[in-house]
Amino acid sequence: MNRLSHVRIVLVETTHPGNIGATARAMKNMGLRDLALVAPRVFPSGEATARASGADDILAAARVCRDLQEAIHDCAVVIGASARLRTISWPQFDPRECANQVSADSAKTAILFGREHSGLTNEELERCHHLLHIPCDPEFSSLNVAAAVQIVAYELFLATRQRSVGEKAGQAPATAGEMESFYGHLERTLYDVRFLHEKKTGPSVMRRLKRIFNRAMLEKKEIHLLRGILTAVQFRKRPQV
Amino acid sequence: MNRLSHVRIVLVETTHPGNIGATARAMKNMGLRDLALVAPRVFPSGEATARASGADDILAAARVCRDLQEAIHDCAVVIGASARLRTISWPQFDPRECANQVSADSAKTAILFGREHSGLTNEELERCHHLLHIPCDPEFSSLNVAAAVQIVAYELFLATRQRSVGEKAGQAPATAGEMESFYGHLERTLYDVRFLHEKKTGPSVMRRLKRIFNRAMLEKKEIHLLRGILTAVQFRKRPQV
Repeated sequence: MNRLSHVRIVLVETTHPGNIGATARAMKNMGLRDLALVAPRVFPSGEATARASGADDILAAARVCRDLQEAIHDCAVVIGASARLRTISWPQFDPRECANQVSADSAKTAILFGREHSGLTNEELERCHHLLHIPCDPEFSSLNVAAAVQIVAYELFLATRQRSVGEKAGQAPATAGEMESFYGHLERTLYDVRFLHEKKTGPSVMRRLKRIFNRAMLEKKEIHLLRGILTAVQFRKRPQV
Repeated sequence: MNRLSHVRIVLVETTHPGNIGATARAMKNMGLRDLALVAPRVFPSGEATARASGADDILAAARVCRDLQEAIHDCAVVIGASARLRTISWPQFDPRECANQVSADSAKTAILFGREHSGLTNEELERCHHLLHIPCDPEFSSLNVAAAVQIVAYELFLATRQRSVGEKAGQAPATAGEMESFYGHLERTLYDVRFLHEKKTGPSVMRRLKRIFNRAMLEKKEIHLLRGILTAVQFRKRPQV
């Protein structure tokens, strides 16, 4: 089983062949297989093979493309790694959010990593549905391209493994809408049991509770469980009202 | 502010200077500064400096040690990265668990990464309080040493950032004991509101609830908030019993 077979790593105009080899190794460590190289400066290369150390099969199967379009033409989702946090209002997420979304989906997805020194051009980023930013020290924020691939591949591996456990039970991540209704139900229940009341109202308490449940990244079935509990609580208190 | 100043990365008998440079870069990207090198084959080296690309200050400050003891003598906590999951009963965690523990503590901590081909010896692993295993494809589980450092450094950066947000509010992670009492309180409350009852008892429901709250990595103050809610629920239902 390869649950990440729908994910393609695309390296755009990579200068150092060593980075291509290190990327192949990082991918194989985390169960990724599909590598596309857009106009690499040197490929194939002994240095790439050396750095791949055992992931030569990924290199051998890598597709060398003339341009970005050729590398992503069959992809439904395109995500671009960007060192700079953009001010432009563009859907942007971190590796964990990215991994949760990508692993929840089976649509062919390309994740683009740009040139060693200049990353992806604005025109290339505009081809992306989402931007991916890896959190790091803002004072030294340029990650090596293979290191960036390693972090993203690691998060993809974790998200996929967690999901594969979940899927056995037919679980899927809750949607934003389901989370909102859950929070509404939770707040009403807190008023019902008078944990919240005219002197102590919702906002700050709800903000703290949302922090907790957002971190937990709830699945649909977990929402059903929690709302079942809220309903039981509401039912038990109703007779008193 | 450097919240990771108590964390030292120790590379043991690294063969390729490029990996030392890549490690320095991975560290600096994530706010780590303290690098110790145990008997590196080649250091200093132009290749290390090249791969550090801008993290030469980390290399310049790196301590070269004759043996492991010299590298860890002042450390209260020693953690050893191990590619193989050990059968021996040794405290073992993954990068995220490691990062949460290390970032919660200020004790001088060394994280050891072994030789490119053979990792850490059993004798070296026995010097460690914890083993650190990076989840990856068991069929291709040897990560490049600098890539392994990058993943661990990334998790440390995330855990520290999350904690720094929390600390403003004087928050600290809940202890295992606090989690257990919380779960006990939660289960009693579920019986009180008859969500659980003789026909539908705790284990599987509690297991699912624990999965949720364990994922959320609760802070002490969050436990107090949640238990306050449980108490309010118990109080509201008592009159009916």
